[in-house]
Amino acid sequence: MAVDDLRAAADRAFTVDPAGSFSYGTAVGYRPLREWIAAKHAVAPENVMVTNGSMQADAFLFDELVPEGAGVVVERPSYDRTLLSLRQRGADITAIELESDGIDVEALAAALRGGRAPRLAHVIPNFQNPAGHTLSLAKRRRLLELAREHDFLIFEDDPYVDIRFRGEQLPRMLELDEGEGNVVYACSFSKTVCPGIRVGYLVGPPDVIARIVKRATSTYISPSMVAQSIVNEFCRSGAIDRSIATVREALRERADALAEALRRELPDASFVEPDGGYFLWLDLPEAIDVDELHVAAGERGVQFVKGSDFMLDGGEHSLRLAYSGVMVPQIEQGVQRLAAAAGALV
Amino acid sequence: MAVDDLRAAADRAFTVDPAGSFSYGTAVGYRPLREWIAAKHAVAPENVMVTNGSMQADAFLFDELVPEGAGVVVERPSYDRTLLSLRQRGADITAIELESDGIDVEALAAALRGGRAPRLAHVIPNFQNPAGHTLSLAKRRRLLELAREHDFLIFEDDPYVDIRFRGEQLPRMLELDEGEGNVVYACSFSKTVCPGIRVGYLVGPPDVIARIVKRATSTYISPSMVAQSIVNEFCRSGAIDRSIATVREALRERADALAEALRRELPDASFVEPDGGYFLWLDLPEAIDVDELHVAAGERGVQFVKGSDFMLDGGEHSLRLAYSGVMVPQIEQGVQRLAAAAGALV
Repeated sequence: MAVDDLRAAADRAFTVDPAGSFSYGTAVGYRPLREWIAAKHAVAPENVMVTNGSMQADAFLFDELVPEGAGVVVERPSYDRTLLSLRQRGADITAIELESDGIDVEALAAALRGGRAPRLAHVIPNFQNPAGHTLSLAKRRRLLELAREHDFLIFEDDPYVDIRFRGEQLPRMLELDEGEGNVVYACSFSKTVCPGIRVGYLVGPPDVIARIVKRATSTYISPSMVAQSIVNEFCRSGAIDRSIATVREALRERADALAEALRRELPDASFVEPDGGYFLWLDLPEAIDVDELHVAAGERGVQFVKGSDFMLDGGEHSLRLAYSGVMVPQIEQGVQRLAAAAGALV
Repeated sequence: MAVDDLRAAADRAFTVDPAGSFSYGTAVGYRPLREWIAAKHAVAPENVMVTNGSMQADAFLFDELVPEGAGVVVERPSYDRTLLSLRQRGADITAIELESDGIDVEALAAALRGGRAPRLAHVIPNFQNPAGHTLSLAKRRRLLELAREHDFLIFEDDPYVDIRFRGEQLPRMLELDEGEGNVVYACSFSKTVCPGIRVGYLVGPPDVIARIVKRATSTYISPSMVAQSIVNEFCRSGAIDRSIATVREALRERADALAEALRRELPDASFVEPDGGYFLWLDLPEAIDVDELHVAAGERGVQFVKGSDFMLDGGEHSLRLAYSGVMVPQIEQGVQRLAAAAGALV
């Protein structure tokens, strides 16, 4: 955590703009931060709203666009909290297989031909949670084609984009859409500034943003202006670039160490090495049941999330490993213990 | 605004507990602040959760306890955003007349005898928004009796309690209830620290708090930990006491100036002088329609909120004046202009 840079950002923010930091704000967010985000994405401020973390952005978006019974496409697997959130709203969920280069767009095309059009397709394009996979450029373009053809909105949920430690960044679907209004984009400063700050944002068509702003106003008036003014200073001073560089380097080391340890200790399991983000998805041999492994690993002090938690059904032989919060020696030790747990089951 | 104290609180908070300030937290809130609030109200931490402002607390509470068609009692008039929030949820709203010493408890008792019991009664006990009135001790006790007898929850919505500039503070219904579980209490640091911080909280029975915590977790993970750690330092260092003293003194001057100007300039209008808070409620002669006055006053640069905005029906001859954000000379000039606008209508 960039503690000194955060403290300095707070001090400057409160000195330069105490009124903006401490007074009532509005649900669109702290004006200078909204403008910084708009410039970053080459859109107008009217396309942007800042929220109390990006999960709150998801919640507002679903509240507004996903009435009970509305069709929503998700990746399989997908982020467990998103699935929960959609199920709580009574969405009619269609899960489309996630491949190593992203959602299976031809399976989606087939599903779209067969059924009614969904309202929304939720996609995590970069270093997906839980699988760590990244959506290819060709598939990004194909998804946009499908959205236009079948008139649904792509919800591009992109909290990990800046944490790429290998390869070139791909254009966002938000950019590829060229302002045609088929994409609502969500991102967050949780991974680049710090998670405790709770500042996320949405970029989308002004009419969609305006509807969500109205909902946010009557829910919480505004996200914390204090937190936003700190983020604004952190971004504009360049501290965010240093923070991202530090986080990237740490995560690259951890991801590399994890992959190496898995190849050595669990040669029968398969995985795709992530190019960024926090997570690696492990497919186990069919002989290993992930419920049993979860217990056996837990007894050895190793935590993971079961694959089945990220799917409506299936996932009994898969799991998600988070390398984001553990140091290299712990990763190596953890994989040894995981292998021992797996070995004890067969 | 206590800018220097806020900056110092941030600096200390980030130095003393960077991990707690910047890492992921949980929906119950920042632990030291939750404990400070629990101690203030002489309850256990399990009775407390911190939220992204107290309006967010209201929203969570209503989401959890007010399904469509649920009976809810409100004061007449009441805070316009609360009415909107309840209407959006399809609540079955019963508005009970607000008297100068608070809600008409005998009218409520009669309504309760006649109909089904409500789930919730929403009451703003101190310096009510919009009317500025304060609920008497006798009525607080009577409300609790009714809640026990008819098995509904009192939602004691108390953002202004610390901004009393005259008289003694009355015991909260939360305290008078002595842990029997008939009260959920909401408060906020918006008026005592600063509104841009967005930190509010709920105190209530642990089972109700636990349900709302679960909902908050799946909505936004946690309120801003950064904002909460600043508030925690601000409270524990004693800066909050200085801030409250400053705010009280400023508001007392403004309320006094407003009352004096109204007596002089609008002798036909009637009002009760508030003992604290932000607002004064003005009842106009029947000859004056508040819609017309709103236009005429607006043309003269005077803003107010029409009484009708705070009621399901009625309020055509009343209005709310907010003296919180205006200096004494502006108050005097504003009342002169308001009187001129009223004079032009009759």
